[in-house]
Amino acid sequence: MEKVIKVGILGAGRIGKLHAINILGMQDAEILVIADPFANQETEEWAYSIGVKNISKDPDDVFNNPDVNTVFICSSTDTHIDFITKAATAGKHIFCEKPIGLDVDQIKAALEIVDKAGVKLQVGFVRRFDHNHKQVRDLVLEGKVGDPHLVKISSRDPQRPPMEYVKVSGGIFMDMMIHDFDMARYLAGSDVEEVFTMGSVLIDPAFAEYDDVDTAMVMLKFKNGALGFIDNSRESNYGYDQRTEVFGSKGCAAVTNDTSNTAVLTTAEGVFSEKPLWFFLERYNDAFIAEVRAFFDAINNDTETPVTGIDGLRPVQIAYAAAKSLKDGLPVKIDSL
Amino acid sequence: MEKVIKVGILGAGRIGKLHAINILGMQDAEILVIADPFANQETEEWAYSIGVKNISKDPDDVFNNPDVNTVFICSSTDTHIDFITKAATAGKHIFCEKPIGLDVDQIKAALEIVDKAGVKLQVGFVRRFDHNHKQVRDLVLEGKVGDPHLVKISSRDPQRPPMEYVKVSGGIFMDMMIHDFDMARYLAGSDVEEVFTMGSVLIDPAFAEYDDVDTAMVMLKFKNGALGFIDNSRESNYGYDQRTEVFGSKGCAAVTNDTSNTAVLTTAEGVFSEKPLWFFLERYNDAFIAEVRAFFDAINNDTETPVTGIDGLRPVQIAYAAAKSLKDGLPVKIDSL
Amino acid sequence: MEKVIKVGILGAGRIGKLHAINILGMQDAEILVIADPFANQETEEWAYSIGVKNISKDPDDVFNNPDVNTVFICSSTDTHIDFITKAATAGKHIFCEKPIGLDVDQIKAALEIVDKAGVKLQVGFVRRFDHNHKQVRDLVLEGKVGDPHLVKISSRDPQRPPMEYVKVSGGIFMDMMIHDFDMARYLAGSDVEEVFTMGSVLIDPAFAEYDDVDTAMVMLKFKNGALGFIDNSRESNYGYDQRTEVFGSKGCAAVTNDTSNTAVLTTAEGVFSEKPLWFFLERYNDAFIAEVRAFFDAINNDTETPVTGIDGLRPVQIAYAAAKSLKDGLPVKIDSL
Amino acid sequence: MEKVIKVGILGAGRIGKLHAINILGMQDAEILVIADPFANQETEEWAYSIGVKNISKDPDDVFNNPDVNTVFICSSTDTHIDFITKAATAGKHIFCEKPIGLDVDQIKAALEIVDKAGVKLQVGFVRRFDHNHKQVRDLVLEGKVGDPHLVKISSRDPQRPPMEYVKVSGGIFMDMMIHDFDMARYLAGSDVEEVFTMGSVLIDPAFAEYDDVDTAMVMLKFKNGALGFIDNSRESNYGYDQRTEVFGSKGCAAVTNDTSNTAVLTTAEGVFSEKPLWFFLERYNDAFIAEVRAFFDAINNDTETPVTGIDGLRPVQIAYAAAKSLKDGLPVKIDSL
Repeated sequence: MEKVIKVGILGAGRIGKLHAINILGMQDAEILVIADPFANQETEEWAYSIGVKNISKDPDDVFNNPDVNTVFICSSTDTHIDFITKAATAGKHIFCEKPIGLDVDQIKAALEIVDKAGVKLQVGFVRRFDHNHKQVRDLVLEGKVGDPHLVKISSRDPQRPPMEYVKVSGGIFMDMMIHDFDMARYLAGSDVEEVFTMGSVLIDPAFAEYDDVDTAMVMLKFKNGALGFIDNSRESNYGYDQRTEVFGSKGCAAVTNDTSNTAVLTTAEGVFSEKPLWFFLERYNDAFIAEVRAFFDAINNDTETPVTGIDGLRPVQIAYAAAKSLKDGLPVKIDSL
Repeated sequence: MEKVIKVGILGAGRIGKLHAINILGMQDAEILVIADPFANQETEEWAYSIGVKNISKDPDDVFNNPDVNTVFICSSTDTHIDFITKAATAGKHIFCEKPIGLDVDQIKAALEIVDKAGVKLQVGFVRRFDHNHKQVRDLVLEGKVGDPHLVKISSRDPQRPPMEYVKVSGGIFMDMMIHDFDMARYLAGSDVEEVFTMGSVLIDPAFAEYDDVDTAMVMLKFKNGALGFIDNSRESNYGYDQRTEVFGSKGCAAVTNDTSNTAVLTTAEGVFSEKPLWFFLERYNDAFIAEVRAFFDAINNDTETPVTGIDGLRPVQIAYAAAKSLKDGLPVKIDSL
Repeated sequence: MEKVIKVGILGAGRIGKLHAINILGMQDAEILVIADPFANQETEEWAYSIGVKNISKDPDDVFNNPDVNTVFICSSTDTHIDFITKAATAGKHIFCEKPIGLDVDQIKAALEIVDKAGVKLQVGFVRRFDHNHKQVRDLVLEGKVGDPHLVKISSRDPQRPPMEYVKVSGGIFMDMMIHDFDMARYLAGSDVEEVFTMGSVLIDPAFAEYDDVDTAMVMLKFKNGALGFIDNSRESNYGYDQRTEVFGSKGCAAVTNDTSNTAVLTTAEGVFSEKPLWFFLERYNDAFIAEVRAFFDAINNDTETPVTGIDGLRPVQIAYAAAKSLKDGLPVKIDSL
Repeated sequence: MEKVIKVGILGAGRIGKLHAINILGMQDAEILVIADPFANQETEEWAYSIGVKNISKDPDDVFNNPDVNTVFICSSTDTHIDFITKAATAGKHIFCEKPIGLDVDQIKAALEIVDKAGVKLQVGFVRRFDHNHKQVRDLVLEGKVGDPHLVKISSRDPQRPPMEYVKVSGGIFMDMMIHDFDMARYLAGSDVEEVFTMGSVLIDPAFAEYDDVDTAMVMLKFKNGALGFIDNSRESNYGYDQRTEVFGSKGCAAVTNDTSNTAVLTTAEGVFSEKPLWFFLERYNDAFIAEVRAFFDAINNDTETPVTGIDGLRPVQIAYAAAKSLKDGLPVKIDSL
């Protein structure tokens, strides 16, 4: 198959490398260049090992490359808006990791530029492509649960992140729960109107030093009248706990976690089975491939991407509202911000 | 075994009859009298069929019977406080159905009288005696989940109640979610400090006519720092959905629903298994027996009952706070009421 | 309700006492007499405690009691045929514990007498009344699995029996697997034509001393062409393992074990859930009640009992065939015996 | 990584193509040549699309290629022995699809040649590399189930194969159950001593025309005293049913099927979940990769392959014994053939 999608990747960190490997598995795509200001010998060796010879420290080597028609923005969040703008201006399709940005006005401005440029933009909310959550969404779309009444999401990381990360992460709502805000909109098929937050520091007092919490619950009111709920914990110890549920006028669709195998051991001591897969690389491995495939299909077929710029913007707005609710101890309407 | 516990039952409605049958199964108890102002021929025939010959329309025939040492208050909620007071004054042990009352000050006054009388009082929060929820609590007590961080409760009735019931029920928080407020305290092992509520009328607009909602979410902050969450729906269609979960510093304990059998049918059309048991009579059948047994054991051993007067009071306070939060759109501290 | 079923019980051992308690819970039945040659003071006290005053050491006190219209034969297996004959001759309905007898010709002769007397006879294959296995049978009857192709049964006891019991039990096929032979006929809806057996002594060499095995597999060919399989172990350590499965032209119906609760604990150490219920008293508690109810209903409605004399005979024949197959190392046709 | 493993593939049918794709994903291997007498334009286009340029109709182009150090035998069964012999003689490592051959003496002779040549040989019993079955085996190896007493395997294909296939397949035991014979040896950790078979034609009378059955049960006696059982059906309708169980002195390890997602839909109509994955390409997708990886690791580390020539031979012997048992209606000792 012809390699019609010619990719430039911005950022060669963990997620950039992950996308690179997945892109290599696509028959209609090839990677022309990878740019990362922090590229070093290790980066070059890795790139060489996967057959990519053009490594640069200058992002403009992506934007200015006339053969590149598609960019993957996998760099740090503070570069996203600038890179989106440059890529759109250069007429290149854009896959941008979440969050799309941290400033709502800047995001809106960038989305306008993308719109005018007529390029595709997909935001990296990978969980929409997970086999489990997608099945819940499909059951909702097929009308199997009727009108959604309650949307519930549990999302718990296996281990607390290093404090250096917490310091710059933007906080639990922007860094971690933003995935769940997207999932809430996706499952409910409706935008969020209002949120209320409770949060605590129960895992490590160090979170408080960075004005963050490690345990949080957010309640959501959707525009279609449905109610939503999200809980997050920074440390489950037992693996990545990723469960979603939609309850509606006809019934309830819910998913449990994935495990590495289905074996059950029954002995005098009890019944033992496998823990959830450890973290997102294990759990969403296939979803990372599926999101890239869906992005390339949208390009090839000139259709809307499954996670649009607006889908990137809304969770940022909800994250700000959730953080404000926690701070003020009051419910916050999204439109009030 | 000697019939040392001599019971008088107040109220011969559904729950009064249920307790009567269960009391008959206890080797150390007998029913001396059943009083119900609405007793009719059907009541008498039923009482006769189970071997109880003394049926009265006058509650005082219970309180004034010197042989009765224990009363079961199964009458309408508005009579509870009066009956508790009379029973305590007469020196009789008291089992009182939930809610213990609707006026916090009256409840407090009645509890003082009970205290002074030195009689036992147990409130009918039957779910504490369910094999599933009790196992979650036991796992918490054994330290298996560590310090509780998140307590989650789903409670959904299979079918909306008749509107005549909704009219007088006291609303979803006092009538239905009160069980979950008790469960939250039970599972967290801590009192509730603050609540926030969202509610919607999604099942039947008639609920709105009675100033009620049919779908509600309440978030709770416990005094020990843990966070809690309850969702209620008046109509699941698929049966009684009763799930609890406690997540803590060491892990997570959770229960699914009971079913009538474990059969799984796998065909070309899919994989089919049983729905949850239909409603509380099916699901909590054994728990209703266990709560009476525990009450009698507390009497026999002169120990504290497992659901005390305070355990009866607190959920009423939380219910008022939850209702106020819904009305005002603001979080409400329990102590502020 | 009138006590139209007037019961005499033969044998006051564990199973006799169990039936007695369950009969007491039936509104249309009463126990007039219990006869047991080994009755002692403990037996009398127990009988008194449940309200039965007529205790005898002489079985004829049951057969000759003109008020008794129904007998429960719960005595040792070697008495069954004699007691069935006497009860039928006396015109009394008969519930007989399994196995109905140990001599095929004697069983046939007794069944003829029962037939001529026109009394009801039900054999105590209690598992047919278990909520799980019955659901598999119901799914088969409803055509949900299509024509049965494969019937699979696992039946494992939690602990090896005492060797004094093994000595007189009649062997694993007559004592333990006989239940599974009945279950096989029940689930397949067909008689067994041929069996083949493999067996081993893997748990305790003492079984070999009594010419028995502790681990056995039997393969069955049904008259309707379906194939069957049973495995038995005398000791699982983890509880009573009782699983059945029917695979057919349209699909597969299967049941797992019952547990005391549905709680699942997930920690860094793994995922833990409950073991199967310990043994038959726990697992088949409700089934023991249901089989008596079904027997009484057959009497009241003058319909065929759900487990007939032939249903009692066939498993005995299969058990002999299975034992012969193990001994000879060859398949055995049931009709060849 | 250097491409030290230089592969020639014999046979470009479904399984040859599958292995080719998986080999391409290995960093230490490359495909030098693919030989298939039936290679046509479609084969060449496919090979070109995956970057393999050397396509031949002559198997000797593989054996005579001095750069090829490893061959994959994915051609029809009747060619296996000849190809193994040629590959070994040419000093090339060998991966051979199952069954290794159809003539026991020829297999033994070929294995001797392999031994003398000192090349690696791995037989394609892919299920040993399945995450579920492997976990059962690992639990056995770790001693978690104690000494194995019972090994049970269910293996049911979703749909009957075309009759042209049945005609040449070698029959259900050689073609289908051969995987289960390998699994039985793998799980029990012991060789099979004796088998007994029952079989029926229940799905399609056409099977009988080819002297085959479509439904079969085989009982096995292992040399270590454990007992085994396998059931096979040519058509489940509901997907690929692949379950294994080992019961031993300490407990029981068992696996259920894999599904495409964990979603459960609960409505008034019932509880619905996903069917097993459809067939072996879906279910054993990852296992096909893992078996090639294990083969290459054995080459690189000069260790024994995880599925040796003897592991290839034994299931063929058991298959002959099982077929003979079905024909004669008698148990058959493996060593007697």
